Amino acid sequence: MIDLEVLRRVSQTLAERKAADPDQSYVSSLYQKGTEAILKKVAEESAEVIMAAKDGDRLHLVWEVTDLWFHTMVLLAHFGLSVEDVAAEFRRREGVSGIDEKRARLATAAEAESVVIAKGGKA
Amino acid sequence: MIDLEVLRRVSQTLAERKAADPDQSYVSSLYQKGTEAILKKVAEESAEVIMAAKDGDRLHLVWEVTDLWFHTMVLLAHFGLSVEDVAAEFRRREGVSGIDEKRARLATAAEAESVVIAKGGKA
Amino acid sequence: MIDLEVLRRVSQTLAERKAADPDQSYVSSLYQKGTEAILKKVAEESAEVIMAAKDGDRLHLVWEVTDLWFHTMVLLAHFGLSVEDVAAEFRRREGVSGIDEKRARLATAAEAESVVIAKGGKA
Amino acid sequence: MIDLEVLRRVSQTLAERKAADPDQSYVSSLYQKGTEAILKKVAEESAEVIMAAKDGDRLHLVWEVTDLWFHTMVLLAHFGLSVEDVAAEFRRREGVSGIDEKRARLATAAEAESVVIAKGGKA
Repeated sequence: MIDLEVLRRVSQTLAERKAADPDQSYVSSLYQKGTEAILKKVAEESAEVIMAAKDGDRLHLVWEVTDLWFHTMVLLAHFGLSVEDVAAEFRRREGVSGIDEKRARLATAAEAESVVIAKGGKA
Repeated sequence: MIDLEVLRRVSQTLAERKAADPDQSYVSSLYQKGTEAILKKVAEESAEVIMAAKDGDRLHLVWEVTDLWFHTMVLLAHFGLSVEDVAAEFRRREGVSGIDEKRARLATAAEAESVVIAKGGKA
Repeated sequence: MIDLEVLRRVSQTLAERKAADPDQSYVSSLYQKGTEAILKKVAEESAEVIMAAKDGDRLHLVWEVTDLWFHTMVLLAHFGLSVEDVAAEFRRREGVSGIDEKRARLATAAEAESVVIAKGGKA
Repeated sequence: MIDLEVLRRVSQTLAERKAADPDQSYVSSLYQKGTEAILKKVAEESAEVIMAAKDGDRLHLVWEVTDLWFHTMVLLAHFGLSVEDVAAEFRRREGVSGIDEKRARLATAAEAESVVIAKGGKA
């Protein structure tokens, strides 16, 4: 059984890189370029996941999903968030409804809407 | 400290849903529709991450990253893979180079190329 | 030689649909759902272009590019813009630099930056 | 009324660039890098359209839609296709059903399916 703690270590490293020299660190240079530069990487990695899956190449797919998760963790860190916030959200959904059943999905969708309404936002 | 084991439970649940009734399970219906339907969800969730980040809405961002990770885990399960494969890939990179330094990044890029060459594929 | 005026007609039809009944028109229902719903379609159609190209299926590729252009025209109309604004931008680039040469590309990139600066925005 | 012929000129220029020196032309270097490099640009430009629309910046939106159309035309040229093929597809849809009405949309969806079936492909 593979230890998932590596995800926490990566997330912590990414948080620490916010104070690093952009010339020494790929991630620090991304932070410095700003939100849009990070989002372009997320879009690009998402496209690479799609292409790897279309090729049916499992080794490449794992590689690209890792890159996508990595860059979403950069994005989270840029906003002061981490993999723990994602885990907490998964845990909350698990608590509300179990993962996946259609009924549950609809329940969380409705709940999401109420959260959104509560914070005065839009869907 | 939030437990990351929920990611393994989600991944396992998604694997089990491959045998479930598509009428009862959102995820089973996605598997049945096939790779392209799952990839469209990945693209859509990726766009939602981008939009939430542009709004600067941290609560919404965590929600959308969770949705994106969820659907990449559906994709992995569709190919017989799981979050453990992603964790193993992060672990491998950590072993090779530490996470992030530019030099390391270049090293893994070169390594990736050699892996690709080894399996007779293309970049 | 195929007449390109159909693009103008489509763009005009899309503008007219802004006043139509959302129950009668697919596009009107998209306008009513708002910017994010339109952007999700743009993201989805972009993914479908990628998948069709990966399949190397030329007939399908034309179909999906048409869908992508259609939904970007919906987006333009939603913001009071049309295919004519895109044509004018292409015309402007053609006037500045010719299409494509690297030098030209860098010139327009530099120019874009100055436009961005002029309107007090960010890159 | 702005002339749309510029789109045909751009498309022709892109076709000509297939024979150009990759060191002299941005587009030629894209062709040389191959389909995946072009598709990554399509994904990136699509994300930039989404970000410009989220900013509500109309000038920037036209700029990014132009970039997206430009790179889809590069993709078309890479497959021996052009803006004329897209115009022809729009014309065909116009002939079948008018643009947009929901009924028409469903008709073309059904038709698309039959085309797909006819060429022995998948949805």
